[in-house]
Amino acid sequence: MSCDQQFIGVLEQLGYSFEAGLKRGGDYSATVRDGDNIYVSGQIPRIADEIVNPGRVGADISLSQAQEAATICALRCLALLQEQAGSLDKIKAIVRMTVFVQSADSFVDQSEVANSASHILHRVLGDAGIHTRTSVGVYQLPKNAPVEIDLIAVTK
Amino acid sequence: MSCDQQFIGVLEQLGYSFEAGLKRGGDYSATVRDGDNIYVSGQIPRIADEIVNPGRVGADISLSQAQEAATICALRCLALLQEQAGSLDKIKAIVRMTVFVQSADSFVDQSEVANSASHILHRVLGDAGIHTRTSVGVYQLPKNAPVEIDLIAVTK
Amino acid sequence: MSCDQQFIGVLEQLGYSFEAGLKRGGDYSATVRDGDNIYVSGQIPRIADEIVNPGRVGADISLSQAQEAATICALRCLALLQEQAGSLDKIKAIVRMTVFVQSADSFVDQSEVANSASHILHRVLGDAGIHTRTSVGVYQLPKNAPVEIDLIAVTK
Repeated sequence: MSCDQQFIGVLEQLGYSFEAGLKRGGDYSATVRDGDNIYVSGQIPRIADEIVNPGRVGADISLSQAQEAATICALRCLALLQEQAGSLDKIKAIVRMTVFVQSADSFVDQSEVANSASHILHRVLGDAGIHTRTSVGVYQLPKNAPVEIDLIAVTK
Repeated sequence: MSCDQQFIGVLEQLGYSFEAGLKRGGDYSATVRDGDNIYVSGQIPRIADEIVNPGRVGADISLSQAQEAATICALRCLALLQEQAGSLDKIKAIVRMTVFVQSADSFVDQSEVANSASHILHRVLGDAGIHTRTSVGVYQLPKNAPVEIDLIAVTK
Repeated sequence: MSCDQQFIGVLEQLGYSFEAGLKRGGDYSATVRDGDNIYVSGQIPRIADEIVNPGRVGADISLSQAQEAATICALRCLALLQEQAGSLDKIKAIVRMTVFVQSADSFVDQSEVANSASHILHRVLGDAGIHTRTSVGVYQLPKNAPVEIDLIAVTK
């Protein structure tokens, strides 16, 4: 199965759709391509105009709610990569993913939040989705988002 | 108008000067060039030896003070790029900007802080200044800076 | 002296060993190589299964304890680079290091924490170890680690 078909299957299974939902600003862009490298701006778990599960992980929301949010961030990154590259089958590697988790004082399971995003990348892209990553717990995120994820991809 | 002239105009209009003000350490460097890529170290809003508007955004300082700080960080990045590349007209793209905002507990307008930095990049560099970005709210920054910005640029 | 010999000397002097201690997950990897670029995942100061000096810098642990942790993170990055590149003598440049410090409310010496990591890179790699860096103070880190460091290297 192609990565694009796999992506459709995952979106259908999870019940998400990002059509017409990927906003961008005027001075910056959701993606920038330089040669084979595609940079993706930090994605928060926005569905249409709503942030899914806003708040501080470990206080306002649970680990599993944060994992749901991280999944959505990863899917948004994939949707942007697909749009920029033309097809997810053109992605050769995800060289870096950074996962920022809005964390409660004592919440130390940022890696477990990131795991759900890592899993989506691997599931959709296969071996090309095995990436390096950095997961940190930050104090706040735009629009009170629980998770923000950016990444750098390389095309074939 | 060239990007270098545009940069002079913006610096004059805003009243900033970074001559002899760009410090660097011994073990690390403000910029590293690898082929066409220029990496710029995290810049805090330092003018000479002073941090402009130190403190936590949303508590100690206002959004507009944070935007002023972000503007200075972006100008410092441009000054360093100009020094490393020889001219800002040699910059082909800003592929990534990351904006760290020292945030109060409930401050969620990190994107609005980042907007002022994004605007400077676009204004000085034109289309080459349209970048991807990630904005997060952190708990502290070096020297109690309100904002820290790093970026990756690509030369022509 | 080669960088590999220098690395052995530093490890022996400081008393650290990372043999069989570099864990990786299934969906992601500790390093990813793309052409000449090697990306290293965020490293926390783990020795075997223990986090060295866990806690918040400036509250639970001191600056010097955080510097010890940052040193270990940097050594882990070097061990991973050595494994991925075959030899540290093949490293041409460290283009970016990002240092996340789990910080107390008023702790603003993130740069001083990062200095110990910068020093290790320079000491082991010589001029190739002079990097750009970004140091920020975050609210939490995985497993209550005091410091997390990632980097991007380029091979000859």
